[in-house]
Amino acid sequence: MSIQQAMAALAAAAKVAARSMAKASPAAKTQALLSLAALLHSQREAIFAANACDVAAAKERGLDAPRMDRLTLTQAILEDMIAACKHVAAMPDPVGALDKQWQRPNGLLVGKMRVPLGVIAMIYEARPNVTIDAAILCLKAGNAVILRGGSEAAHSNAVLADILGQALQGAGLPAEAAQLVRIPDHAAVNALCKLDEYIDVMIPRGGEGLVRAVTEAATMPVLKHYKGVCHAFIDADADVDMALNIVFNGKVQRPGVCNALECVLVHEAIAPAFLPRMGGKLGSAKVAFRACPQALPLLGAQASPAAPTDFGKEFHDLILAVRVVPNMDAALDHIAHYGSQHTEIICTNNHSHAMRFVREADASMVAVNASTRFNDGGQLGLGAEIGISTSKLHAYGAMGVEELTTIKFMVLGTGQVRQ
Amino acid sequence: MSIQQAMAALAAAAKVAARSMAKASPAAKTQALLSLAALLHSQREAIFAANACDVAAAKERGLDAPRMDRLTLTQAILEDMIAACKHVAAMPDPVGALDKQWQRPNGLLVGKMRVPLGVIAMIYEARPNVTIDAAILCLKAGNAVILRGGSEAAHSNAVLADILGQALQGAGLPAEAAQLVRIPDHAAVNALCKLDEYIDVMIPRGGEGLVRAVTEAATMPVLKHYKGVCHAFIDADADVDMALNIVFNGKVQRPGVCNALECVLVHEAIAPAFLPRMGGKLGSAKVAFRACPQALPLLGAQASPAAPTDFGKEFHDLILAVRVVPNMDAALDHIAHYGSQHTEIICTNNHSHAMRFVREADASMVAVNASTRFNDGGQLGLGAEIGISTSKLHAYGAMGVEELTTIKFMVLGTGQVRQ
Repeated sequence: MSIQQAMAALAAAAKVAARSMAKASPAAKTQALLSLAALLHSQREAIFAANACDVAAAKERGLDAPRMDRLTLTQAILEDMIAACKHVAAMPDPVGALDKQWQRPNGLLVGKMRVPLGVIAMIYEARPNVTIDAAILCLKAGNAVILRGGSEAAHSNAVLADILGQALQGAGLPAEAAQLVRIPDHAAVNALCKLDEYIDVMIPRGGEGLVRAVTEAATMPVLKHYKGVCHAFIDADADVDMALNIVFNGKVQRPGVCNALECVLVHEAIAPAFLPRMGGKLGSAKVAFRACPQALPLLGAQASPAAPTDFGKEFHDLILAVRVVPNMDAALDHIAHYGSQHTEIICTNNHSHAMRFVREADASMVAVNASTRFNDGGQLGLGAEIGISTSKLHAYGAMGVEELTTIKFMVLGTGQVRQ
Repeated sequence: MSIQQAMAALAAAAKVAARSMAKASPAAKTQALLSLAALLHSQREAIFAANACDVAAAKERGLDAPRMDRLTLTQAILEDMIAACKHVAAMPDPVGALDKQWQRPNGLLVGKMRVPLGVIAMIYEARPNVTIDAAILCLKAGNAVILRGGSEAAHSNAVLADILGQALQGAGLPAEAAQLVRIPDHAAVNALCKLDEYIDVMIPRGGEGLVRAVTEAATMPVLKHYKGVCHAFIDADADVDMALNIVFNGKVQRPGVCNALECVLVHEAIAPAFLPRMGGKLGSAKVAFRACPQALPLLGAQASPAAPTDFGKEFHDLILAVRVVPNMDAALDHIAHYGSQHTEIICTNNHSHAMRFVREADASMVAVNASTRFNDGGQLGLGAEIGISTSKLHAYGAMGVEELTTIKFMVLGTGQVRQ
């Protein structure tokens, strides 16, 4: 059997399983999630043994440190996975709920009913815990999921996928509702990308190269985000202490993630009061600045002149671009030009500026007086997330269980016909 | 300037205009729509003259009758266009509204705010009234729109586009928010399909060939529907008179449209009571039947044996496929196999069957005891529609103003940072 045939068979089985999942009772899905939590605990030795195998092989091949870190399953990560299963089990079931309902003049009752998307294919990289996180969100939303993790995590993912299958079958649900692609060849991903007959949506999660490759190859819709170039605009009316905390949190807490702060835009009226203190506070946390000519003399020793390419750049590091702007229009123009539609924030006490910023800054999350780091499904209160979409169709921003469903029209009549 | 350059310039101008439209006040958009209604009336002579020119040219080239019909603007169609402008003007403005809002434990107020999609490109065929219908929905939702109608309607569309520009500018909005592609060459469509830097979504509307060509070429998301193969399941408990009316309406009222009925599935327990009457009632309206062996002897003179390809077929004509099924499972299996995810209905008085059907039949509209013909934005109460999506991402079913927007997260803080 060729790779194409193997993937077609797997996707066809997923489509059959998706019909069962779509009509599964909330109780059956809850049972599967809770039994998954129990199995992850009782089979932890097997999970850690498989992961050790992956880690040893990766060490031998000289995998870089950040990817080694993501590959390694710790007791704490396993406990987070178990907690996520329990948390998602306790969430309300979205499927079959009516978002709205209204009556037409002819008496027809029209409702918008949440239904699953169908078959979701997740393509991701090193972290084996994504196998569980992605699967439980897809299953809760009544979908079947095809999981294609990184080849580095092959042993870990195989054990986790077996456990997923046990949990589903124990609840009377088909094991094919969560299938792992066990072919390491990249041709398997390409084959999946063409199976729009069976797969409703692809969700690539990982580096820009992976996301672009899937987007270009896929014949079905893709939910994705490329990068986060997040800005903070420090308005003339900002509270300086508050703004310092927010900028510090955005840049320093976890600089390698997509909702980290990459560029600060400072109103010229507040620049003399704000920038020297920012230079001190962030400078003492080893942040280096790439500054415009106006900001440069105000920032202290760790500032150097910004190159044109420093604006719009995702540093993923303790580096911050800084630009002084004459007014809010210039800040919004900068964001429209350099932003990545991920996260944009304003620090201000001016109500009309706050209102204008949330309307006009085009990003999946816009905020007033809060850190960029809140653009995360858990932090926003979605319970969990499968990723952050920076394209606008279907979902814009953090995607939780609800974003893994769609809406169909349900019409209840008493014999109405069209005139 | 090459066609590629011309299209890139047009799309770049649309993207600039989209920023103005996104922040436009509801009052300005309403003014533009009402002034459009007035201009369509006051410039009706010029519109009819341009249309006469298109019609004469089409006649000379021997355009087929249905397309001639769609191309021709009548007084009644113009009045419908004017009424649509006034109707959409009076609808609530979706942009900036919060669908939901909640508070987090740390005091952050999180809201989901409706925002425009950005730049929408509509690719459509002969009907010049689509130029106005599509434009007003896109503009109401705060988008910029690129309109690419059929070359047969070039003169009509040019006049309508000029009027659109006047209406926008009169309300202080950019004329580039509604631009017509005036290059007849199909290369213009291909060029648009690659401009994902500027265009957020493509909406092709027309024959299957057009939709497939755009879908295959586009590098941005596409909202589309291919075809409607709509079924009615006549359950054992159906009210026979009601079911007859519903089937008659679905098949006979307007057989050439996508929400017309193409196949009736009849429970074997009711087949002897239902099918002879259906054969009589629809037969007298000149409907021909393609029947399974069980249905064939019950339907009368206009029935012939169904070929395997008659199931899952969009006849677009006074032809109806008929199949007797032993139970509801068989009906749902038939729909899962042959359905096009457009419209599926059940006629029944059994509550649990009705509940099960609306959950399990996978279609953009499912209905109980109502005609398939109600799957239409106007009939469902959306006010107007830009099309019916049969893919599940972003929108499933009739798309009105709301479906031409997306949702971003708005976060209002008082200095919160992430722990």
